[in-house]
Amino acid sequence: MADHASTEITRHGVTRRWSDAVVHGGVAYFVEVAADPTAAPARQFAQVFEQAEATLARVGSGLNRLLQVTIVIPFPEDLAEFNRQWDAWIPEGHAPSRACLHTQLVNPHYRVELIITAAVE
Amino acid sequence: MADHASTEITRHGVTRRWSDAVVHGGVAYFVEVAADPTAAPARQFAQVFEQAEATLARVGSGLNRLLQVTIVIPFPEDLAEFNRQWDAWIPEGHAPSRACLHTQLVNPHYRVELIITAAVE
Amino acid sequence: MADHASTEITRHGVTRRWSDAVVHGGVAYFVEVAADPTAAPARQFAQVFEQAEATLARVGSGLNRLLQVTIVIPFPEDLAEFNRQWDAWIPEGHAPSRACLHTQLVNPHYRVELIITAAVE
Repeated sequence: MADHASTEITRHGVTRRWSDAVVHGGVAYFVEVAADPTAAPARQFAQVFEQAEATLARVGSGLNRLLQVTIVIPFPEDLAEFNRQWDAWIPEGHAPSRACLHTQLVNPHYRVELIITAAVE
Repeated sequence: MADHASTEITRHGVTRRWSDAVVHGGVAYFVEVAADPTAAPARQFAQVFEQAEATLARVGSGLNRLLQVTIVIPFPEDLAEFNRQWDAWIPEGHAPSRACLHTQLVNPHYRVELIITAAVE
Repeated sequence: MADHASTEITRHGVTRRWSDAVVHGGVAYFVEVAADPTAAPARQFAQVFEQAEATLARVGSGLNRLLQVTIVIPFPEDLAEFNRQWDAWIPEGHAPSRACLHTQLVNPHYRVELIITAAVE
């Protein structure tokens, strides 16, 4: 540990296994998967966008303060619908850096995971 | 939103879907894929290194200021050539933290994607 | 480069290809894979947790200062044992933001890779 004052870490929604969001040094780190993994892909995308906005509000950030988003879409055939919703969701002029991977997630029903870095301060 | 002054976010190359680079709090976030996805793997690697250097210059960073790079190589057989070029590209003594995954990218022709965090200030 | 003083970058365990850890602006970036890729999955998990704790100590951070961890588990059948060890490893109340992917790693014997962001200051 540093022997000077540490920058505070704020954890939101802490469980045994993860925190819903962690804030440090003006940056928030969080991950979203759909609350209902049995929902159809389009519904899961709507859910993660809604959830991400709620998390951004909770940490004192906002949709215009996304820095980097890594998108995981296990089923490549879902990408067109995901992008349609994404393009409508991202405020014009405020798009983050974005990576997109097609890889399997821990729950085979999940159609999307967002790994998000956002500015708080 | 914070009620005090926010740290500025600078977005470079903003499109509807992503920004080429986003800078906040002295850190730049950006993602590179080869400008020409039809190029041979070795050429794509050279392209992303060239593009990454241009982006580093654009954001006021440099090749000796890489912090973390996640390398996505969809075709494992490309790794040896990638590493050969990487080892020549990274300035000695300034290697970043590095992760490497073999997973499918959104364009099946892409042979590499770099997800980069770099220091600006 | 900025024309004012730059924030220092500290690199630990620098090799030609990567650094074991990179620290900048109060944040440490590092990646862990098991020192012995021929070990059984459960042993590899124990190894990466031990190694991660050593790296956290080395950079002046600690297990209660993890911000974001992306877990790569190539073999989905390993997840239950990984989670069992993870839940015992993470100090209660200090869980990081956590993502988990099932994707192939560069060495087919690796059973886990951790991509870690931690607070130093």
